[in-house]
Amino acid sequence: MSRSGPGDALAPVRVLGIDPGTRLCGWGVVARVGGRLEHVDNGVVVLDPKAALADRLARLLEALEGVLGVYHPDAAACESVFHNRNARAALTLGHARGVALAALARSGLAVSEYTPQQVKKAVTGSGRADKAQIQQMVALRLDLPEPPQADAADAVAVALCHAQHGAVGVAGVALPTAPRGGRRRSQAALKALVTRQEKGRT
Amino acid sequence: MSRSGPGDALAPVRVLGIDPGTRLCGWGVVARVGGRLEHVDNGVVVLDPKAALADRLARLLEALEGVLGVYHPDAAACESVFHNRNARAALTLGHARGVALAALARSGLAVSEYTPQQVKKAVTGSGRADKAQIQQMVALRLDLPEPPQADAADAVAVALCHAQHGAVGVAGVALPTAPRGGRRRSQAALKALVTRQEKGRT
Repeated sequence: MSRSGPGDALAPVRVLGIDPGTRLCGWGVVARVGGRLEHVDNGVVVLDPKAALADRLARLLEALEGVLGVYHPDAAACESVFHNRNARAALTLGHARGVALAALARSGLAVSEYTPQQVKKAVTGSGRADKAQIQQMVALRLDLPEPPQADAADAVAVALCHAQHGAVGVAGVALPTAPRGGRRRSQAALKALVTRQEKGRT
Repeated sequence: MSRSGPGDALAPVRVLGIDPGTRLCGWGVVARVGGRLEHVDNGVVVLDPKAALADRLARLLEALEGVLGVYHPDAAACESVFHNRNARAALTLGHARGVALAALARSGLAVSEYTPQQVKKAVTGSGRADKAQIQQMVALRLDLPEPPQADAADAVAVALCHAQHGAVGVAGVALPTAPRGGRRRSQAALKALVTRQEKGRT
Protein backbone atom coordinates (compact mmCIF):
# COMPACT_ATOMS: atom_id res chain seq x y z
CA MET A 1 0.00 0.00 0.00
CA SER A 2 2.03 2.93 -1.21
CA ARG A 3 0.84 6.41 -0.47
CA SER A 4 1.89 9.70 -1.96
CA GLY A 5 3.91 11.93 0.30
CA PRO A 6 2.33 15.26 1.09
CA GLY A 7 5.09 17.11 -0.69
CA ASP A 8 4.53 15.46 -4.04
CA ALA A 9 2.13 17.81 -5.80
CA LEU A 10 1.92 15.73 -8.97
CA ALA A 11 1.17 12.36 -7.36
CA PRO A 12 -2.49 11.34 -7.29
CA VAL A 13 -4.19 12.06 -3.99
CA ARG A 14 -7.44 10.33 -3.14
CA VAL A 15 -10.09 11.93 -1.01
CA LEU A 16 -12.99 9.98 0.50
CA GLY A 17 -16.13 11.96 1.28
CA ILE A 18 -18.90 10.65 3.53
CA ASP A 19 -22.51 11.77 3.92
CA PRO A 20 -23.54 9.75 6.98
CA GLY A 21 -27.00 8.40 7.78
CA THR A 22 -28.58 5.44 9.61
CA ARG A 23 -30.76 4.60 6.60
CA LEU A 24 -28.59 5.64 3.64
CA CYS A 25 -24.93 6.55 3.89
CA GLY A 26 -23.32 8.04 0.80
CA TRP A 27 -19.64 7.77 0.00
CA GLY A 28 -17.55 9.12 -2.84
CA VAL A 29 -13.90 9.02 -3.82
CA VAL A 30 -12.22 11.65 -5.98
CA ALA A 31 -8.58 11.87 -6.96
CA ARG A 32 -6.47 14.89 -7.63
CA VAL A 33 -4.21 13.99 -10.50
CA GLY A 34 -1.80 16.81 -11.14
CA GLY A 35 -4.02 19.87 -11.05
CA ARG A 36 -7.16 18.04 -12.11
CA LEU A 37 -9.92 16.38 -10.06
CA GLU A 38 -11.11 12.98 -11.23
CA HIS A 39 -13.96 10.78 -10.13
CA VAL A 40 -12.89 7.39 -8.77
CA ASP A 41 -16.04 5.76 -7.42
CA ASN A 42 -19.15 6.46 -5.39
CA GLY A 43 -21.92 4.53 -3.73
CA VAL A 44 -24.61 4.39 -1.11
CA VAL A 45 -24.62 1.99 1.84
CA VAL A 46 -28.28 1.01 2.13
CA LEU A 47 -29.24 -0.03 5.65
CA ASP A 48 -32.32 -2.10 6.41
CA PRO A 49 -34.72 0.15 8.32
CA LYS A 50 -36.31 -2.96 9.84
CA ALA A 51 -33.02 -4.16 11.33
CA ALA A 52 -32.04 -3.23 14.89
CA LEU A 53 -30.08 0.03 15.08
CA ALA A 54 -26.98 -1.75 16.42
CA ASP A 55 -27.02 -4.19 13.51
CA ARG A 56 -27.38 -1.38 11.00
CA LEU A 57 -24.43 0.44 12.54
CA ALA A 58 -22.31 -2.73 12.50
CA ARG A 59 -23.17 -3.13 8.81
CA LEU A 60 -22.25 0.51 8.19
CA LEU A 61 -18.91 0.04 9.94
CA GLU A 62 -18.14 -2.99 7.80
CA ALA A 63 -19.19 -1.29 4.59
CA LEU A 64 -17.03 1.77 5.24
CA GLU A 65 -14.07 -0.40 6.21
CA GLY A 66 -14.61 -2.15 2.89
CA VAL A 67 -14.48 1.14 0.99
CA LEU A 68 -11.35 2.16 2.89
CA GLY A 69 -9.75 -1.19 2.11
CA VAL A 70 -10.47 -0.93 -1.58
CA TYR A 71 -9.54 2.71 -2.23
CA HIS A 72 -6.94 3.51 0.44
CA PRO A 73 -7.76 7.23 0.47
CA ASP A 74 -5.11 9.74 1.55
CA ALA A 75 -7.63 12.09 3.16
CA ALA A 76 -11.21 11.98 4.33
CA ALA A 77 -14.00 14.44 4.94
CA CYS A 78 -17.40 14.10 6.49
CA GLU A 79 -20.44 16.31 6.36
CA SER A 80 -21.09 18.01 9.68
CA VAL A 81 -24.51 18.69 11.08
CA PHE A 82 -27.13 21.38 11.42
CA HIS A 83 -27.21 22.26 15.07
CA ASN A 84 -30.82 23.36 14.88
CA ARG A 85 -32.06 19.83 14.38
CA ASN A 86 -34.19 18.40 17.14
CA ALA A 87 -32.55 16.21 19.77
CA ARG A 88 -33.95 12.94 18.49
CA ALA A 89 -32.85 13.55 14.89
CA ALA A 90 -29.43 14.71 16.11
CA LEU A 91 -29.02 11.59 18.22
CA THR A 92 -29.91 9.30 15.32
CA LEU A 93 -27.58 11.04 12.92
CA GLY A 94 -24.91 11.11 15.62
CA HIS A 95 -24.88 7.31 15.70
CA ALA A 96 -24.04 7.05 12.00
CA ARG A 97 -21.52 9.90 12.13
CA GLY A 98 -19.82 8.32 15.12
CA VAL A 99 -19.35 5.06 13.24
CA ALA A 100 -18.09 6.85 10.13
CA LEU A 101 -15.63 9.06 12.04
CA ALA A 102 -14.30 6.09 14.03
CA ALA A 103 -13.80 4.00 10.88
CA LEU A 104 -11.99 6.84 9.09
CA ALA A 105 -9.77 7.78 12.02
CA ARG A 106 -8.92 4.18 12.80
CA SER A 107 -7.60 3.72 9.29
CA GLY A 108 -5.14 6.52 10.08
CA LEU A 109 -6.91 9.33 8.26
CA ALA A 110 -7.29 12.84 9.58
CA VAL A 111 -10.97 13.64 9.14
CA SER A 112 -12.06 17.10 8.10
CA GLU A 113 -15.61 18.28 8.52
CA TYR A 114 -17.61 20.69 6.39
CA THR A 115 -21.09 22.03 6.88
CA PRO A 116 -23.67 21.31 4.18
CA GLN A 117 -23.48 25.01 3.24
CA GLN A 118 -19.72 24.89 2.76
CA VAL A 119 -20.04 21.79 0.60
CA LYS A 120 -22.80 23.28 -1.53
CA LYS A 121 -20.95 26.51 -2.00
CA ALA A 122 -17.69 24.80 -2.89
CA VAL A 123 -19.34 22.60 -5.48
CA THR A 124 -22.10 24.72 -6.96
CA GLY A 125 -21.08 28.25 -6.01
CA SER A 126 -24.21 28.62 -3.89
CA GLY A 127 -24.70 27.62 -0.27
CA ARG A 128 -28.38 27.09 -0.98
CA ALA A 129 -28.18 24.58 -3.82
CA ASP A 130 -30.74 21.77 -3.69
CA LYS A 131 -30.11 18.03 -4.02
CA ALA A 132 -30.68 17.97 -7.77
CA GLN A 133 -28.28 20.85 -8.36
CA ILE A 134 -25.59 19.05 -6.34
CA GLN A 135 -26.12 15.91 -8.39
CA GLN A 136 -25.90 17.81 -11.68
CA MET A 137 -22.90 19.84 -10.64
CA VAL A 138 -21.01 16.80 -9.41
CA ALA A 139 -21.66 15.04 -12.73
CA LEU A 140 -20.66 18.13 -14.70
CA ARG A 141 -17.47 18.83 -12.80
CA LEU A 142 -16.29 15.24 -12.83
CA ASP A 143 -17.43 14.52 -16.38
CA LEU A 144 -19.75 11.68 -15.36
CA PRO A 145 -22.19 10.21 -17.89
CA GLU A 146 -25.04 10.66 -15.41
CA PRO A 147 -25.49 12.13 -11.93
CA PRO A 148 -24.83 9.81 -8.96
CA GLN A 149 -27.65 8.93 -6.56
CA ALA A 150 -28.50 11.83 -4.27
CA ASP A 151 -26.67 10.58 -1.14
CA ALA A 152 -23.65 9.47 -3.15
CA ALA A 153 -23.58 12.84 -4.93
CA ASP A 154 -23.56 14.59 -1.55
CA ALA A 155 -20.61 12.46 -0.48
CA VAL A 156 -18.73 13.14 -3.73
CA ALA A 157 -19.44 16.83 -3.16
CA VAL A 158 -17.89 16.57 0.32
CA ALA A 159 -14.81 14.95 -1.20
CA LEU A 160 -14.65 17.66 -3.89
CA CYS A 161 -14.99 20.37 -1.26
CA HIS A 162 -12.09 18.90 0.69
CA ALA A 163 -9.98 18.28 -2.41
CA GLN A 164 -10.38 21.94 -3.35
CA HIS A 165 -9.62 23.37 0.05
CA GLY A 166 -8.36 20.73 2.38
CA ALA A 167 -5.01 19.45 3.45
CA VAL A 168 -4.63 16.84 0.75
CA GLY A 169 -0.99 17.28 0.06
CA VAL A 170 -1.37 19.54 -2.92
CA ALA A 171 0.18 22.92 -3.49
CA GLY A 172 -2.18 25.31 -1.84
CA VAL A 173 -3.81 25.46 1.50
CA ALA A 174 -3.56 23.02 4.33
CA LEU A 175 -6.47 23.56 6.66
CA PRO A 176 -6.21 22.06 10.11
CA THR A 177 -8.55 19.18 10.81
CA ALA A 178 -11.65 20.74 12.21
CA PRO A 179 -12.83 20.22 15.83
CA ARG A 180 -12.19 21.64 19.27
CA GLY A 181 -10.87 25.13 19.49
CA GLY A 182 -9.38 25.29 16.02
CA ARG A 183 -12.83 24.77 14.56
CA ARG A 184 -13.96 28.35 14.40
CA ARG A 185 -10.68 29.52 12.99
CA SER A 186 -10.58 26.83 10.32
CA GLN A 187 -14.13 27.61 9.25
CA ALA A 188 -13.29 31.27 8.95
CA ALA A 189 -10.22 30.37 6.91
CA LEU A 190 -12.34 28.15 4.71
CA LYS A 191 -14.88 30.88 4.18
CA ALA A 192 -12.13 33.27 3.16
CA LEU A 193 -10.82 30.68 0.76
CA VAL A 194 -14.18 30.03 -0.82
CA THR A 195 -14.63 33.75 -1.29
CA ARG A 196 -11.17 34.09 -2.76
CA GLN A 197 -11.78 31.22 -5.13
CA GLU A 198 -15.14 32.61 -6.18
CA LYS A 199 -13.55 35.96 -6.95
CA GLY A 200 -10.84 34.23 -8.94
CA ARG A 201 -13.45 32.32 -10.91
CA THR A 202 -15.46 35.33 -12.07
CA MET B 1 -13.97 -19.75 22.38
CA SER B 2 -16.71 -21.87 23.87
CA ARG B 3 -20.02 -20.27 24.64
CA SER B 4 -22.84 -21.54 26.75
CA GLY B 5 -25.92 -22.55 24.88
CA PRO B 6 -29.01 -20.56 25.75
CA GLY B 7 -30.74 -23.63 27.11
CA ASP B 8 -28.12 -24.36 29.71
CA ALA B 9 -29.38 -22.54 32.77
CA LEU B 10 -26.46 -23.56 34.95
CA ALA B 11 -23.64 -22.53 32.62
CA PRO B 12 -22.11 -19.10 33.28
CA VAL B 13 -23.50 -16.36 31.09
CA ARG B 14 -21.59 -13.13 30.73
CA VAL B 15 -23.27 -9.79 30.19
CA LEU B 16 -21.40 -6.69 29.06
CA GLY B 17 -22.94 -3.36 30.00
CA ILE B 18 -21.91 -0.07 28.39
CA ASP B 19 -22.44 3.51 29.52
CA PRO B 20 -21.29 5.41 26.43
CA GLY B 21 -19.67 8.84 26.28
CA THR B 22 -17.19 10.77 24.14
CA ARG B 23 -15.12 11.72 27.18
CA LEU B 24 -15.56 8.75 29.51
CA CYS B 25 -17.12 5.46 28.48
CA GLY B 26 -17.85 2.97 31.26
CA TRP B 27 -18.01 -0.78 30.77
CA GLY B 28 -18.78 -3.63 33.11
CA VAL B 29 -19.03 -7.38 32.83
CA VAL B 30 -21.13 -9.53 35.14
CA ALA B 31 -21.67 -13.27 35.00
CA ARG B 32 -24.65 -15.28 36.00
CA VAL B 33 -23.34 -18.45 37.54
CA GLY B 34 -26.20 -20.76 38.36
CA GLY B 35 -28.72 -18.46 39.98
CA ARG B 36 -26.14 -15.98 41.26
CA LEU B 37 -24.71 -12.80 39.71
CA GLU B 38 -20.97 -12.30 39.94
CA HIS B 39 -18.74 -9.40 39.06
CA VAL B 40 -16.16 -10.14 36.36
CA ASP B 41 -14.51 -6.82 35.56
CA ASN B 42 -15.24 -3.17 34.94
CA GLY B 43 -13.46 -0.13 33.65
CA VAL B 44 -13.64 3.30 32.08
CA VAL B 45 -12.29 4.17 28.65
CA VAL B 46 -10.82 7.64 29.16
CA LEU B 47 -10.75 9.67 25.96
CA ASP B 48 -8.50 12.69 25.51
CA PRO B 49 -10.76 15.76 25.30
CA LYS B 50 -8.03 17.58 23.38
CA ALA B 51 -7.94 14.93 20.64
CA ALA B 52 -10.08 15.30 17.50
CA LEU B 53 -13.52 13.72 17.87
CA ALA B 54 -12.80 11.18 15.13
CA ASP B 55 -9.63 10.06 16.88
CA ARG B 56 -11.43 9.71 20.20
CA LEU B 57 -14.11 7.59 18.55
CA ALA B 58 -11.50 5.39 16.86
CA ARG B 59 -9.87 4.88 20.24
CA LEU B 60 -13.24 4.04 21.77
CA LEU B 61 -13.91 1.49 19.04
CA GLU B 62 -10.58 -0.18 19.67
CA ALA B 63 -10.99 -0.17 23.43
CA LEU B 64 -14.44 -1.78 23.23
CA GLU B 65 -13.21 -4.36 20.75
CA GLY B 66 -10.46 -5.09 23.26
CA VAL B 67 -13.00 -5.67 26.04
CA LEU B 68 -15.07 -7.89 23.73
CA GLY B 69 -11.96 -9.86 22.79
CA VAL B 70 -10.97 -10.44 26.39
CA TYR B 71 -14.35 -11.30 27.94
CA HIS B 72 -16.39 -12.78 25.05
CA PRO B 73 -19.72 -11.77 26.55
CA ASP B 74 -22.85 -13.70 25.64
CA ALA B 75 -25.09 -10.66 25.79
CA ALA B 76 -24.73 -6.90 25.79
CA ALA B 77 -26.72 -3.93 26.95
CA CYS B 78 -26.28 -0.23 26.49
CA GLU B 79 -27.78 2.72 28.29
CA SER B 80 -30.27 4.57 26.12
CA VAL B 81 -30.72 8.31 26.14
CA PHE B 82 -32.86 11.04 27.59
CA HIS B 83 -34.81 12.44 24.68
CA ASN B 84 -35.15 15.81 26.34
CA ARG B 85 -31.47 16.60 25.95
CA ASN B 86 -30.62 19.44 23.64
CA ALA B 87 -29.66 18.67 20.05
CA ARG B 88 -25.95 19.34 20.48
CA ALA B 89 -25.64 17.09 23.55
CA ALA B 90 -27.68 14.39 21.82
CA LEU B 91 -25.47 14.54 18.73
CA THR B 92 -22.29 14.23 20.79
CA LEU B 93 -23.61 11.33 22.82
CA GLY B 94 -24.96 9.75 19.63
CA HIS B 95 -21.43 9.52 18.24
CA ALA B 96 -20.22 7.44 21.19
CA ARG B 97 -23.35 5.31 21.29
CA GLY B 98 -23.08 4.64 17.56
CA VAL B 99 -19.55 3.35 17.97
CA ALA B 100 -20.51 1.21 20.96
CA LEU B 101 -23.57 -0.29 19.29
CA ALA B 102 -21.63 -1.04 16.10
CA ALA B 103 -18.81 -2.73 18.01
CA LEU B 104 -21.23 -4.87 20.04
CA ALA B 105 -23.38 -5.88 17.08
CA ARG B 106 -20.40 -6.63 14.90
CA SER B 107 -19.15 -9.11 17.44
CA GLY B 108 -22.41 -10.97 16.97
CA LEU B 109 -24.21 -9.76 20.09
CA ALA B 110 -27.82 -8.70 20.23
CA VAL B 111 -27.78 -5.37 22.03
CA SER B 112 -30.53 -4.48 24.46
CA GLU B 113 -31.15 -0.94 25.58
CA TYR B 114 -32.39 0.35 28.91
CA THR B 115 -33.21 3.86 29.98
CA PRO B 116 -31.26 5.30 32.93
CA GLN B 117 -34.47 5.05 34.98
CA GLN B 118 -34.87 1.35 34.21
CA VAL B 119 -31.26 0.70 35.16
CA LYS B 120 -31.52 2.65 38.42
CA LYS B 121 -34.75 0.96 39.38
CA ALA B 122 -33.44 -2.51 38.59
CA VAL B 123 -30.30 -2.01 40.63
CA THR B 124 -31.35 0.22 43.53
CA GLY B 125 -35.12 -0.20 43.58
CA SER B 126 -35.57 3.50 42.78
CA GLY B 127 -35.63 5.15 39.34
CA ARG B 128 -34.28 8.31 40.95
CA ALA B 129 -31.10 6.98 42.53
CA ASP B 130 -28.07 9.24 42.23
CA LYS B 131 -24.58 8.31 41.04
CA ALA B 132 -23.27 7.55 44.54
CA GLN B 133 -26.22 5.28 45.31
CA ILE B 134 -25.62 3.34 42.10
CA GLN B 135 -21.96 2.94 43.00
CA GLN B 136 -22.77 1.71 46.49
CA MET B 137 -25.53 -0.63 45.37
CA VAL B 138 -23.38 -2.16 42.65
CA ALA B 139 -20.61 -2.79 45.19
CA LEU B 140 -23.07 -4.23 47.69
CA ARG B 141 -24.87 -6.51 45.28
CA LEU B 142 -21.69 -7.86 43.71
CA ASP B 143 -19.75 -8.04 46.96
CA LEU B 144 -16.99 -5.70 45.79
CA PRO B 145 -14.42 -4.40 48.28
CA GLU B 146 -15.10 -0.83 47.10
CA PRO B 147 -17.46 0.89 44.64
CA PRO B 148 -16.30 1.13 41.00
CA GLN B 149 -15.70 4.55 39.41
CA ALA B 150 -18.98 6.32 38.64
CA ASP B 151 -19.08 5.60 34.87
CA ALA B 152 -17.95 2.01 35.36
CA ALA B 153 -20.57 1.54 38.09
CA ASP B 154 -23.25 2.80 35.68
CA ALA B 155 -22.09 0.26 33.10
CA VAL B 156 -22.07 -2.57 35.65
CA ALA B 157 -25.58 -1.48 36.62
CA VAL B 158 -26.66 -1.74 32.96
CA ALA B 159 -25.22 -5.26 32.83
CA LEU B 160 -26.97 -6.17 36.09
CA CYS B 161 -30.24 -4.76 34.78
CA HIS B 162 -29.97 -6.91 31.68
CA ALA B 163 -28.82 -10.00 33.56
CA GLN B 164 -31.89 -9.72 35.77
CA HIS B 165 -34.40 -9.19 33.03
CA GLY B 166 -32.85 -9.75 29.68
CA ALA B 167 -32.49 -12.58 27.23
CA VAL B 168 -29.32 -14.03 28.67
CA GLY B 169 -30.14 -17.65 28.34
CA VAL B 170 -31.34 -18.10 31.86
CA ALA B 171 -34.63 -19.45 33.06
CA GLY B 172 -36.88 -16.45 33.09
CA VAL B 173 -37.78 -13.81 30.65
CA ALA B 174 -36.38 -13.19 27.22
CA LEU B 175 -37.06 -9.62 26.24
CA PRO B 176 -36.81 -8.71 22.59
CA THR B 177 -33.90 -6.50 21.63
CA ALA B 178 -35.20 -3.00 21.91
CA PRO B 179 -35.54 -0.68 18.87
CA ARG B 180 -38.03 0.05 16.12
CA GLY B 181 -41.61 -0.78 16.72
CA GLY B 182 -41.00 -3.38 19.38
CA ARG B 183 -39.42 -0.73 21.59
CA ARG B 184 -42.47 0.54 23.34
CA ARG B 185 -43.78 -2.94 23.95
CA SER B 186 -40.51 -4.22 25.36
CA GLN B 187 -40.23 -1.23 27.69
CA ALA B 188 -43.73 -1.84 28.94
CA ALA B 189 -42.89 -5.51 29.45
CA LEU B 190 -39.77 -4.53 31.33
CA LYS B 191 -41.70 -2.16 33.55
CA ALA B 192 -44.16 -4.89 34.38
CA LEU B 193 -41.28 -7.20 35.19
CA VAL B 194 -39.59 -4.69 37.43
CA THR B 195 -42.85 -4.14 39.26
CA ARG B 196 -43.39 -7.88 39.58
CA GLN B 197 -39.90 -8.37 40.89
CA GLU B 198 -40.24 -5.53 43.37
CA LYS B 199 -43.44 -7.03 44.70
CA GLY B 200 -41.76 -10.40 45.00
CA ARG B 201 -38.92 -8.82 46.91
CA THR B 202 -41.00 -7.18 49.61
